[in-house]
Amino acid sequence: MTSTREPWVVRDALLVTQNARREVRRGDLRIEDGRFTHVGPDAPRDGAEVIDGHGFAAVPGFINAHTHVAMAPLRGAADDVDLAGFLEILFRLDADRTEADVEAGAKAGIAEMLLGGTTSFLDLYYFEDAVGRACTDLGIRGFLGWAVLDPDRTTQSGVPLDNARRFLARWKDHPTVEPLVAPQGVYVVGRDTWLAAVELARSTGRLLHYHLSETRQEVHAHEQATGQRPVIWLDAIGALGRGQIAAHAVWLTGREIELLGRHGVAIAHCPSSNEKLASGGFCPVVELRRAGAPVALGTDSVASNNSLSMLREMHLAGLAQKNHRWEAAALPAGELLDLATREGAKALGRADELGSLEVGKRADFSLFRLDHPTLFPARPETIIPHLAYSASEEAIDSVSVNGEWVVRHRSLVRRPWATILKEATEAAESLWARRSELT
Amino acid sequence: MTSTREPWVVRDALLVTQNARREVRRGDLRIEDGRFTHVGPDAPRDGAEVIDGHGFAAVPGFINAHTHVAMAPLRGAADDVDLAGFLEILFRLDADRTEADVEAGAKAGIAEMLLGGTTSFLDLYYFEDAVGRACTDLGIRGFLGWAVLDPDRTTQSGVPLDNARRFLARWKDHPTVEPLVAPQGVYVVGRDTWLAAVELARSTGRLLHYHLSETRQEVHAHEQATGQRPVIWLDAIGALGRGQIAAHAVWLTGREIELLGRHGVAIAHCPSSNEKLASGGFCPVVELRRAGAPVALGTDSVASNNSLSMLREMHLAGLAQKNHRWEAAALPAGELLDLATREGAKALGRADELGSLEVGKRADFSLFRLDHPTLFPARPETIIPHLAYSASEEAIDSVSVNGEWVVRHRSLVRRPWATILKEATEAAESLWARRSELT
Repeated sequence: MTSTREPWVVRDALLVTQNARREVRRGDLRIEDGRFTHVGPDAPRDGAEVIDGHGFAAVPGFINAHTHVAMAPLRGAADDVDLAGFLEILFRLDADRTEADVEAGAKAGIAEMLLGGTTSFLDLYYFEDAVGRACTDLGIRGFLGWAVLDPDRTTQSGVPLDNARRFLARWKDHPTVEPLVAPQGVYVVGRDTWLAAVELARSTGRLLHYHLSETRQEVHAHEQATGQRPVIWLDAIGALGRGQIAAHAVWLTGREIELLGRHGVAIAHCPSSNEKLASGGFCPVVELRRAGAPVALGTDSVASNNSLSMLREMHLAGLAQKNHRWEAAALPAGELLDLATREGAKALGRADELGSLEVGKRADFSLFRLDHPTLFPARPETIIPHLAYSASEEAIDSVSVNGEWVVRHRSLVRRPWATILKEATEAAESLWARRSELT
Repeated sequence: MTSTREPWVVRDALLVTQNARREVRRGDLRIEDGRFTHVGPDAPRDGAEVIDGHGFAAVPGFINAHTHVAMAPLRGAADDVDLAGFLEILFRLDADRTEADVEAGAKAGIAEMLLGGTTSFLDLYYFEDAVGRACTDLGIRGFLGWAVLDPDRTTQSGVPLDNARRFLARWKDHPTVEPLVAPQGVYVVGRDTWLAAVELARSTGRLLHYHLSETRQEVHAHEQATGQRPVIWLDAIGALGRGQIAAHAVWLTGREIELLGRHGVAIAHCPSSNEKLASGGFCPVVELRRAGAPVALGTDSVASNNSLSMLREMHLAGLAQKNHRWEAAALPAGELLDLATREGAKALGRADELGSLEVGKRADFSLFRLDHPTLFPARPETIIPHLAYSASEEAIDSVSVNGEWVVRHRSLVRRPWATILKEATEAAESLWARRSELT
């Protein structure tokens, strides 16, 4: 997905820049070679195709900082059960999947994300080559983590860490798919494998992504086994550092928050999934940010959310923090939009490339129709609150990734949804037949 | 909105009946004179227009059990503040509204609700004649409560109870707009006015709708003033009874839950609004239902939610209860859909008329596109979870109220959205100019 097309200009849109001052102003976007070369009034139009942005808000693409996108066909497969019950069903279904059904499922999930204004996502799964192919096929930016488990705890063929190493090598030069290393969590990854995963990420300059302290049970079990809570243990073995994104982080002590902040570990906050699985707590978003840990927002998979909507996730994230803290001003609208955009970029170590409409950054953005009922009244001072609290996916007219339209007028550009749906439905049939046998 | 059209049949849809067994089956709907005359396979087609329902789920219309629909132009006007701060801004803006801007605002809110599959709503506001005209104009079923306050606590012209009485008289014979009496809450309605409101509702056979125990501060203040918590006090003055819907009910003791159940008072649970205003607690939905109080679901107004989406509200309601109770099975998908449909009908005393696809009931229903990404994988066993947890409004193709299409293929039938938006935008301009003066 290198951008060879001519320069283009979106003129006279309401620019929700998400720059450091969260400026909202009318103006133009000029895009060349996949990047913004002008953001503001009076973009030069030489040699450019000009698109009328009047009636639209241009909004940075959302960054979904934690999901398992290929699980799309398993939406509804394990509802209204806690994480232990959930994993009991899902691990068995995951174990039987083929690379083909992972690819079909990933396309369905990626389509849903693109139509919802998500332009980058951080994934944790296996058969990530299939997910990578789905990304390049549909045009989303993928940060793809190969799941690493101890060899005796996995259903992967071969040694997961070796699988991950080969995956990194295969995708090392791709412009929009970035491979990374993803230790599943301390409950299936022991000290040696964890440190080897950290070393693999460090030596290749890749990100590390893992689940962390999602449930009380998991924290308790780790304490029983090692005498230390997960973050204390990770610090003690020398595993924490920058370039890491920990998903969930619900059950943390003050000391653990301080350690995560000091090491610059980023957090992928997944409130819908945590609440649906009755984790019982709340990710201490405010304290983590104060301690210096960037906090991004993730949907987790549709098997536990059950949506991939970053719009819903912002709404829910804000409301949960406000209510839990008895503080209506906690996570105000602007900060919620930050989590979904510029803080997501920071978590991925791409603050210089993604997350805002600024000159030099990648042209990953959506056009929202300002005349949609869920954005009424559409005013410069209400657009950020409306994005955080009320906007519907239906308001998203078009989505650009890397300066190319991937959604135009609510339709996928690269492949018709009907085709994706047909293939994913076939993949779902066999998974649901298998589920019937298991339950 | 009497239905004079010919009989019609929707054939071969996935019927999400929401009957007592929550049956989901393929079949037909036959509609005559605004009611279902056949629900199931092989509907007679004599004299009927036949619509192909293949590829769609037919779902009972949602019942939004608490809102202030005319506040639509005030979305975003008071975000990230608690209820006290919220009311300080909103009461002053409300006070200056004209009947014309209430009507324009109500149309915008009703349009949003219809496009979101809501076919009935329970409103609490003043200038409710304007809201009633908006209902009949766009074709939604309205249960409209005229706000009653003590004469020295209101900004209405005249005595609110007299205004309410005249409002009941004006709308007493309307087929789809039902007027009712709405004491605002114990913080602005003393004993005499409250009992007079109860008597007015009883003597006219109308519902009573009120705010109840939404915040700690409000409960505390009432206890300071009267020596009793609000529900204990309402019981003591003889005000509780059937045909009442109390909105919020967040801060209740076990004794209060028991009293509400014993008197058959229904609850309009509004989790988004409660969380956004940082009420700090959770409506005890499970205990209320167990005590015998029907629990319905409401969005509250867009000024505090900020959405009128019943789909989002189900998702959020389920997740909040699960997490708060540390119990993933609390409020499972089927019960969430009940809250939005048949329990809503029960709360309104219309269990015989609304809330499910059953012969004899009013033909209030939506057709959801089964090929929408947010309903994938669309299977009979997943449709209810998908409605509760993932479906987007965009999946709603058409909506019928009283056997008439009011939304068809995502467009309002009675009036173009563009016209509604233009009028509501003008109404918003003056309200926002006034807001600038106030803040």
